[in-house]
Amino acid sequence: MFRALLVDAAGAVLDRIETRDGIQSVPKSGFEEVLARQIAPWRAAHGLLPIYAAGMIGSRNGWLEMPYVETPAGIEALAGAVRKITLADGGSIAFLPGLTDKSVKPFPDVMRGEETQLAGLGLEPDRMVVLPGTHSKWARIAGGRITRFQTFMTGEVFGLLSRSFVSQPAQGQARAEPDWSAFAYGLDAAHDRSQPSGLLSRLFSVRTGWLAGKLLPEQMTDYLSGVVVGTEFREAWNMGWFGTGDAVTIIGGAGLAEVYRRAALAFGLVPGFGPADAAVQGCLAIAARLDGAD
Amino acid sequence: MFRALLVDAAGAVLDRIETRDGIQSVPKSGFEEVLARQIAPWRAAHGLLPIYAAGMIGSRNGWLEMPYVETPAGIEALAGAVRKITLADGGSIAFLPGLTDKSVKPFPDVMRGEETQLAGLGLEPDRMVVLPGTHSKWARIAGGRITRFQTFMTGEVFGLLSRSFVSQPAQGQARAEPDWSAFAYGLDAAHDRSQPSGLLSRLFSVRTGWLAGKLLPEQMTDYLSGVVVGTEFREAWNMGWFGTGDAVTIIGGAGLAEVYRRAALAFGLVPGFGPADAAVQGCLAIAARLDGAD
Repeated sequence: MFRALLVDAAGAVLDRIETRDGIQSVPKSGFEEVLARQIAPWRAAHGLLPIYAAGMIGSRNGWLEMPYVETPAGIEALAGAVRKITLADGGSIAFLPGLTDKSVKPFPDVMRGEETQLAGLGLEPDRMVVLPGTHSKWARIAGGRITRFQTFMTGEVFGLLSRSFVSQPAQGQARAEPDWSAFAYGLDAAHDRSQPSGLLSRLFSVRTGWLAGKLLPEQMTDYLSGVVVGTEFREAWNMGWFGTGDAVTIIGGAGLAEVYRRAALAFGLVPGFGPADAAVQGCLAIAARLDGAD
Repeated sequence: MFRALLVDAAGAVLDRIETRDGIQSVPKSGFEEVLARQIAPWRAAHGLLPIYAAGMIGSRNGWLEMPYVETPAGIEALAGAVRKITLADGGSIAFLPGLTDKSVKPFPDVMRGEETQLAGLGLEPDRMVVLPGTHSKWARIAGGRITRFQTFMTGEVFGLLSRSFVSQPAQGQARAEPDWSAFAYGLDAAHDRSQPSGLLSRLFSVRTGWLAGKLLPEQMTDYLSGVVVGTEFREAWNMGWFGTGDAVTIIGGAGLAEVYRRAALAFGLVPGFGPADAAVQGCLAIAARLDGAD
């Protein structure tokens, strides 16, 4: 997926481009050409504006493998790791680094892109943030820095299972709006403190609920979502990420943010939302520290 | 998948047929025709031998939806629920029931086929049995009956994740023999009692291990296997299925049985193997109680 935003100095989005040209489909040698072609109209209208690149474009299979800054890290540390390269058209592109938490076992955890969203949210005041997605991230902000984080494979696991055998009776069922009661039912199954927290055992309840006549085919996907998202919260709770009554800030698109707001409430958290344009604000915040840095 | 075995009175397998005609691909109205066509040579050579059907052919999308016998259940209870129907060729086919454990939360657990394997293993003496597979089963045998069981979605989850984003660098890597050191590394990650047992958080270590240079692309699939199978054992341990030094009997094909033997050892269990032909022996044991029952 190629995503570009044309942004003014205040961070207002003037235009956006989204295409299927991603690091999975475009060879490394083709990245600059894709970029040049896609933003040619912006170049024609606005000249050589600075370009900032965050996320998987800076990963091992991306354009340039960017280092991971180590936690704890603030905006200065992120800005200090930015690498700028010159393009064939004379402009430049600045790659933003990722972030690593070396305290995570058994291997250091990593993020690419979410650190920029956290910078856009702002690293004051102290708080706990959840960024739902394919690889959902929980992050702690304290003393103006991102101090630690943990990845959960929630979105990838949900996506796979919703198209797999266990969800088969749900296949082809229309699902315009989530069935929130089925979602809550799944959350309850994950939350039930009288049962151990295991995902492998609980997942089969998607099928056994249908077999028992307790879940209709059109409810299975939302029940599955409740079980998987609820298990993320259960695991985070087991790991000491939160206690009852704690506040959590959710950064994500409207649909996922609502899913996580409901899960947060079910687990006794007090949810709030970060800004929808956190990524843009994060690029600007990091860019503002780059002056003279290169 | 259609599987048929031609068996003599002592349970020796004289011939076997395996084709892609399964309940996913053949319409309900076509089951009898597929059966008749596939076993026509056996009919010609041996006449109208009795036929026993176990497993998913007796499920909701199968030929005949068979009831689930409730735990605790012995061979008599399983035999008492068998249903026999007459075929167009004048022969008969006897469908074996499934088994349900209504104590499992949030919905009663179910098995179809494994109860027949357990009957073939024999319900004396008391023991704990693991049947690895797409939907792995842990079962307790006590007092001549199957008293309880629990399903873990280990095989389905492993299969999905081994072909998904997190395993991407491993795609196309040859894997003739499992890399047992990578498998053990994954088991250790799941077993580490200093860390909570969450699968969603631990799964991402497949990718971070590769990023950290600790896992080669060709090791990622076996490491993933260790994490997922190890999490099954960790969850079973959390649920009170076993303590250190307990014996466990593994029933499964050679490859999976070895994977589970190693996992059992890593978790302090004393593993043994059930017979490879447990399903055949189970059909015969149940059939032996059918005389006069219909």
